[in-house]
Amino acid sequence: MFGKDFLFGVSMSGFQFEMGGEDSLDPNSDWFVWVRDSVNIASGLVSGDLPENGVDYWNRFKSDHDLMRKFGINSVRIGVEWSRIFPKSTKDVEVEVKKDGTAIRSVKITEKNLKELEKIANMEAVKRYREIMKDIKEKGMWLMVNLNHFTLPLWIHDPIKVRKHGIKNVEESGWYSEETVIEFAKFAAFCAREFKDLADAWSTMNEPQVVSSLGYVLITAGFPPSYPSFEAYVRSSINLAQAHARAYDSIKSMSDKDVGVIYSFSPAYPVDGKDGEHVDMANYYQNFWFMDMITSGRIGKLFEGSTEMERTDMKDRVDFLGINYYTRIVVDKGGPMGWRILGGYGYGCEPYSRSRAGYPASQVGWEIYPKGLYDIIRMLHERYELDMIVTENGTADPEDRLRPYYLISHIYEVEKALSEGYPVLGYLHWSFMDNYEWSKGFDKRFGLVQVDLESKSRNPRPSAYVYSEIIRKRTTKGIVESVPYEV
Amino acid sequence: MFGKDFLFGVSMSGFQFEMGGEDSLDPNSDWFVWVRDSVNIASGLVSGDLPENGVDYWNRFKSDHDLMRKFGINSVRIGVEWSRIFPKSTKDVEVEVKKDGTAIRSVKITEKNLKELEKIANMEAVKRYREIMKDIKEKGMWLMVNLNHFTLPLWIHDPIKVRKHGIKNVEESGWYSEETVIEFAKFAAFCAREFKDLADAWSTMNEPQVVSSLGYVLITAGFPPSYPSFEAYVRSSINLAQAHARAYDSIKSMSDKDVGVIYSFSPAYPVDGKDGEHVDMANYYQNFWFMDMITSGRIGKLFEGSTEMERTDMKDRVDFLGINYYTRIVVDKGGPMGWRILGGYGYGCEPYSRSRAGYPASQVGWEIYPKGLYDIIRMLHERYELDMIVTENGTADPEDRLRPYYLISHIYEVEKALSEGYPVLGYLHWSFMDNYEWSKGFDKRFGLVQVDLESKSRNPRPSAYVYSEIIRKRTTKGIVESVPYEV
Amino acid sequence: MFGKDFLFGVSMSGFQFEMGGEDSLDPNSDWFVWVRDSVNIASGLVSGDLPENGVDYWNRFKSDHDLMRKFGINSVRIGVEWSRIFPKSTKDVEVEVKKDGTAIRSVKITEKNLKELEKIANMEAVKRYREIMKDIKEKGMWLMVNLNHFTLPLWIHDPIKVRKHGIKNVEESGWYSEETVIEFAKFAAFCAREFKDLADAWSTMNEPQVVSSLGYVLITAGFPPSYPSFEAYVRSSINLAQAHARAYDSIKSMSDKDVGVIYSFSPAYPVDGKDGEHVDMANYYQNFWFMDMITSGRIGKLFEGSTEMERTDMKDRVDFLGINYYTRIVVDKGGPMGWRILGGYGYGCEPYSRSRAGYPASQVGWEIYPKGLYDIIRMLHERYELDMIVTENGTADPEDRLRPYYLISHIYEVEKALSEGYPVLGYLHWSFMDNYEWSKGFDKRFGLVQVDLESKSRNPRPSAYVYSEIIRKRTTKGIVESVPYEV
Amino acid sequence: MFGKDFLFGVSMSGFQFEMGGEDSLDPNSDWFVWVRDSVNIASGLVSGDLPENGVDYWNRFKSDHDLMRKFGINSVRIGVEWSRIFPKSTKDVEVEVKKDGTAIRSVKITEKNLKELEKIANMEAVKRYREIMKDIKEKGMWLMVNLNHFTLPLWIHDPIKVRKHGIKNVEESGWYSEETVIEFAKFAAFCAREFKDLADAWSTMNEPQVVSSLGYVLITAGFPPSYPSFEAYVRSSINLAQAHARAYDSIKSMSDKDVGVIYSFSPAYPVDGKDGEHVDMANYYQNFWFMDMITSGRIGKLFEGSTEMERTDMKDRVDFLGINYYTRIVVDKGGPMGWRILGGYGYGCEPYSRSRAGYPASQVGWEIYPKGLYDIIRMLHERYELDMIVTENGTADPEDRLRPYYLISHIYEVEKALSEGYPVLGYLHWSFMDNYEWSKGFDKRFGLVQVDLESKSRNPRPSAYVYSEIIRKRTTKGIVESVPYEV
Repeated sequence: MFGKDFLFGVSMSGFQFEMGGEDSLDPNSDWFVWVRDSVNIASGLVSGDLPENGVDYWNRFKSDHDLMRKFGINSVRIGVEWSRIFPKSTKDVEVEVKKDGTAIRSVKITEKNLKELEKIANMEAVKRYREIMKDIKEKGMWLMVNLNHFTLPLWIHDPIKVRKHGIKNVEESGWYSEETVIEFAKFAAFCAREFKDLADAWSTMNEPQVVSSLGYVLITAGFPPSYPSFEAYVRSSINLAQAHARAYDSIKSMSDKDVGVIYSFSPAYPVDGKDGEHVDMANYYQNFWFMDMITSGRIGKLFEGSTEMERTDMKDRVDFLGINYYTRIVVDKGGPMGWRILGGYGYGCEPYSRSRAGYPASQVGWEIYPKGLYDIIRMLHERYELDMIVTENGTADPEDRLRPYYLISHIYEVEKALSEGYPVLGYLHWSFMDNYEWSKGFDKRFGLVQVDLESKSRNPRPSAYVYSEIIRKRTTKGIVESVPYEV
Repeated sequence: MFGKDFLFGVSMSGFQFEMGGEDSLDPNSDWFVWVRDSVNIASGLVSGDLPENGVDYWNRFKSDHDLMRKFGINSVRIGVEWSRIFPKSTKDVEVEVKKDGTAIRSVKITEKNLKELEKIANMEAVKRYREIMKDIKEKGMWLMVNLNHFTLPLWIHDPIKVRKHGIKNVEESGWYSEETVIEFAKFAAFCAREFKDLADAWSTMNEPQVVSSLGYVLITAGFPPSYPSFEAYVRSSINLAQAHARAYDSIKSMSDKDVGVIYSFSPAYPVDGKDGEHVDMANYYQNFWFMDMITSGRIGKLFEGSTEMERTDMKDRVDFLGINYYTRIVVDKGGPMGWRILGGYGYGCEPYSRSRAGYPASQVGWEIYPKGLYDIIRMLHERYELDMIVTENGTADPEDRLRPYYLISHIYEVEKALSEGYPVLGYLHWSFMDNYEWSKGFDKRFGLVQVDLESKSRNPRPSAYVYSEIIRKRTTKGIVESVPYEV
Repeated sequence: MFGKDFLFGVSMSGFQFEMGGEDSLDPNSDWFVWVRDSVNIASGLVSGDLPENGVDYWNRFKSDHDLMRKFGINSVRIGVEWSRIFPKSTKDVEVEVKKDGTAIRSVKITEKNLKELEKIANMEAVKRYREIMKDIKEKGMWLMVNLNHFTLPLWIHDPIKVRKHGIKNVEESGWYSEETVIEFAKFAAFCAREFKDLADAWSTMNEPQVVSSLGYVLITAGFPPSYPSFEAYVRSSINLAQAHARAYDSIKSMSDKDVGVIYSFSPAYPVDGKDGEHVDMANYYQNFWFMDMITSGRIGKLFEGSTEMERTDMKDRVDFLGINYYTRIVVDKGGPMGWRILGGYGYGCEPYSRSRAGYPASQVGWEIYPKGLYDIIRMLHERYELDMIVTENGTADPEDRLRPYYLISHIYEVEKALSEGYPVLGYLHWSFMDNYEWSKGFDKRFGLVQVDLESKSRNPRPSAYVYSEIIRKRTTKGIVESVPYEV
Repeated sequence: MFGKDFLFGVSMSGFQFEMGGEDSLDPNSDWFVWVRDSVNIASGLVSGDLPENGVDYWNRFKSDHDLMRKFGINSVRIGVEWSRIFPKSTKDVEVEVKKDGTAIRSVKITEKNLKELEKIANMEAVKRYREIMKDIKEKGMWLMVNLNHFTLPLWIHDPIKVRKHGIKNVEESGWYSEETVIEFAKFAAFCAREFKDLADAWSTMNEPQVVSSLGYVLITAGFPPSYPSFEAYVRSSINLAQAHARAYDSIKSMSDKDVGVIYSFSPAYPVDGKDGEHVDMANYYQNFWFMDMITSGRIGKLFEGSTEMERTDMKDRVDFLGINYYTRIVVDKGGPMGWRILGGYGYGCEPYSRSRAGYPASQVGWEIYPKGLYDIIRMLHERYELDMIVTENGTADPEDRLRPYYLISHIYEVEKALSEGYPVLGYLHWSFMDNYEWSKGFDKRFGLVQVDLESKSRNPRPSAYVYSEIIRKRTTKGIVESVPYEV
């Protein structure tokens, strides 16, 4: 049974949802140029679909919010686009920075700075974001504002140049540069000022580890800049953590609302069922290393020879954990690191098949493993003792064949965690409607509501009615029994 | 848009739903002995599942009706079991029969006969059926009572004996014998007397052609008596038609409600898209031959040398057509009859695969082809100009992966037919809940509502919420768009 | 390493191979009428393919034998058709029978009897068989003559009548009647007289348990008479054993060559890897019960209440075991008998898939499990200590995708058994060329050599070259390593 | 029927075959460092398998040649590794070059130059190559020597640096630099001097377009340097063509044997069966653009705005075409270029599935389309009128399930082309034995002969026996009929 304050909501981002209608274009981000680069398209790194053919939340937000309410949804997470608010550089706004090598220990943004920022900002975009947020609030829904979801302004990151000339030869090198930390702190402060009357909670960023690992290691995923380098991976990871800490400070100086971070967690399981150090290492690497930096302030050992450090300036910078959960990883003891992720499970299944453990796999080949959500909640509680919100959970499924099962079974696991006392405040489904799935384009359909990209009409999938019923009942009991799911 | 009187309902039968609880056993039917025959089980003809482990509608009908109402369902079709009401023979009740060779031209049942029948009848069973019907009525739902759904009392049909000794050497030979026609007329008259204050409409029987074809030709389907004989196939088909006509007369003499028949229609399509005589022949054989007998009174030519006849005593004996639609057939010109059904389409697909035409196939390997429902409505209207009710439509799908799509797309086709003026009065889904799927047992799950066979608990599948929403809106508009279905 | 006397050969039968050319028709067997019965075809029990469109070994045997020699084949098993040699009844030939209830304890056939039989026999057919056998011998190949392979003369068994009227109402009731035992003894004696100068070994019959189980229990397999009856199953099984014993006596009275029986063995394995009584029971039922009757003379307990008996007149009637091996069975403790065969293994796989244990499955859904051949050799040796010949082993595989692997791995297992001292005299592959696969027709292709049914041309598949190479080398060493097969 | 001089052979390369045994390591090539780069392994661009665990042809060539002879093989193509012969730079050897911008119009290598090169060369490697070639010749086989198969010496190309710093910031930039053309001319001249007494034919390079397209566009294929750039793609393509021309001149100045080039051809087919300009464009781009440069000397228009040029110094530089054929491409009119390659056909199928046209697909997802080999032979003859040799054709198939079919059907198409008078001199299968499949590692098994990587033992697959039989018969007649292949 979920309490009456439990947040049943949906998550969205800026880049994936906003464009598609009149005056909705934002051409100033790295992703905007990335997905239309002809070599990227020719090489198959990106789909060739373009975000300007999207679902146009920018103009249609009011009817979208109405539809949410109809289904009983009481909370929404949105993203604001840095490149919309600051299409031009903010580097000339001089702020007080305490720097120590590559460590940015503090960034102080004064009211004067904020006024300078306002002059640079696109205040039309700010206005539109306020209208969106106000409409959410007026319709009685709780609002989480997330400040960064993958995209960076072009003046901070030109991924085509990075790949062409090498990361060290390019000024706009994104999270590889600690300068980006400072600019992000400015952006966060400015957003806090502009939106603090509307936001019920803040998140600084979404899935930082995806940005660094897909950008700098797993380059076939098609994320900018697809520039393979372990050094860039580690450096950008640490800069993202610093950026979070400094943005946390910025927001907290102006708003008393909670500030969290959203992270994609994937609990590790031993393939043979036998726990061991290799499983712990996998979990550390996958789920804890980043989070440790901004809770205990410890930059831990990532691999042989990597820097370890204590950073008190990064300590205790999280009020709640935003949990994105899609699937698990299954590991054995192989590989040079003493553990490795096995194919046939987790993210490594054939589309629409079964995993090696017999669980169904989604349209994008992700194993559906509901128990993993419960397990990660438990693990995170044991390590961090923070409030938690499930900030993403969903599946690509245009025909809605697996989503009802997916939805019911995962919410069941949240209900179970709650009944055992774990402090989970909400469940925000990814996502309310179909949207632009980054390098994969429009083909991957994650919506409770289908969107016809021609007419932009919204059509609820069966899952929407199921979600509505769970929200109404505030329990999965009487519904979870209908799906063939071991409970 | 469906009118406010449109029947949105569910269909059930006796044998498949009743047993499972206290005092619910009915051991007196052919199917009861058939599914527990050890040779049948050993040979794989039947599943080995037993109906007494079923969903116990016999005792749980009140809460089941409550659940139906909750989802907005406004109409129910139930079946009564001949073997429950007459566990013993009614042959000794002498009635006036006009007989002409094997033709039973009329059966007159007097009030005196009915009183004699009452003495033989199990009035406890009658009482329970009345309670069930009353509860349906009291909850504001429209009721159709169907008198025969596959099962026969053992004193009329012992399928084990038939197979063992040959059909001519066995007295209780079911529909092979025209004597069964007379007994069925008695049973119908008796039911009309007992239930006429409660039934809103009557059906004499369900899918007569399935009884004869699976019983006497397609013997690997596991239907009693699995005794292969073309002669028995034709004879039982004609006897079923006669039985319908005589039951129609019986009921009409006592009730002014409409009397129809329920038939499993499968429109035929040419594999190459080119219409022709072979397609007409396929449709005649599959969909019209039986229905012609009881509308125009014509026993048509089934194959070279078969009897043709005019039977005015069978003419105009249908007030409405009950359409069971599951899938289509696809044909070419091959085979000895000049047409033949092709595998890879219709009923002949691999489970959970795609048909050769690219449509998804269900758990039992049936192609999902919604347009066929519209087409058969059109074809039947052109030939018979009778009111129509969709009396069955559904799919085996324990994980509810295809049912939402199935449900939405088929109701859409009904809506389309209605909008074009075809007289369709209702849509009754097969079925409300999981039940006993004849020789296939409990493994095949056709319910909007899942049933746990241990606890007997009812748990709505996602489809139930979708159906509820369509009923509430009285249209598929805004819902059908969410499924990837060509409209 | 196989010794120089090791028999590397092929197996064939009469009905499946002979017809297809001039004067090759034999319309006098039960199978001939069975496969063209229109209800059988309509019901899908048989394929509709007809044996008269077959490969015409009857006329083409010489070139077929030449092709065998080209590939190094040194041994052939053929079948003679009872219905060819005795198209008319031999019942009027009075012989001396010792009978004891249904037990036929001895049948004495005198020279006078044989002369009477000669008058009834179709001596043209005898002549042709002698030509075939002579050609085999002249080409230096070893010859096994098998007397019965599924088919019975129509005057002994009319399966259409049996099914129509019930087995007790039909005189020609095949192996259900102990009279058939006597006629078979006559036939065996006559064959021995006619062919004793040519045969190097005799087999009385092929796979007796398939005849009784598919004919009387597993009726969806489409074997005559598809008449379900446990009584008929047991009775025909015992009569087949008696028939073997009496035929053994007949042959031995005239020929000093070895007389064996061919049986389809399928070793049982526990699904959980744990041996137990249930596995022993499965093996007893599947592999030993029949064989015990004709070795130790013991009719064992088949199920609760079945007759047990000692029959000294049936004891020691086997000189060698003909092992047909296709796949195994996997069992657990379930079911009414305390053991049952599980689907997903052995004969119960999806065509061209993988078994649940990960082994590939053939075109007919049979798991490829080479180790089972070694295991059954070991088990049979332990129980009977008789010489053994692999008389069938092969796979349906028109594209020859699995056959090379199948062939190499199974012969490897024979080589292994031989190297450990088990007395295996030969390996006869099923089969040399494509042929008529009973109720499945021509679609199932078991040949090392493909046959074009139009032109009747013979075209060796890759497997033929592989077999040839193994024969040449007399070992699988250097070849078995090339297939991904755990050894 | 193939003539007695027809070359039935096998193709090999250096890098994929040589390493694996004592003193066989060559650490001086770009591929050697590429496949062990830790970011490449972590990102999944390469398999993690290492070539030093390979099949060790370097030491085992004698027994390998013996095994070839056993199967009747009469011709071999080998590759020599530039990095073995010149592990150190040859740039200091000054030669006379006629240069015109980026055009290298001639490179004159004098006897003096060759002597200088000899001092730089690793003469131990030269000696070993001579031993290998001599053994081939002594065993009566025809020898083709190919000078470049994908790998470049590290002093010419460091792909890790290219990707890290950008191609323009790196001196060793491979085929992107026209300086490489000059060094290749030196290498070719040196090889001609050292091996001219042994080679029966020369090829300058293998699949130049694969090097440029996978290196600079289709970067997920894992080929060095995986640096996406259209400019680099075009430039390296032209440099490869120049390099061929200059190498041709080098060799011709010293040897009177034919000099060809090996190219991977993939004929284009319209998806709707309708020919048109888009198909011609696809064929031009895929099959002719490169070849035109070195036959007619014309650098054609590759896309809007690309340079067109006549280069008489590149004209008539091919004596024969080496055809590598694996599969076709299927195109429609879509895409920015007016034609595009469709998935579900050709190289774009799911592994071990069927293509959309129903043809089987290999372990690496390549459609098996034998007719394409005939078609490309015809198309090439019409355009170039040169002698042709099939220099590669084969399939990844560890279990040898598709290879027999693949082999027979493709050789059949060659036989057909030959019978119609097309000048095809030979068929060299890829490959004799399993080897290192570049970024895919050892998992992809292309051998007629399986190799156990532990013991290095060679075990012929069934296909080897089939190939042997075709060679013996010099026809596919009597064999091709055994595979279900439309001819």
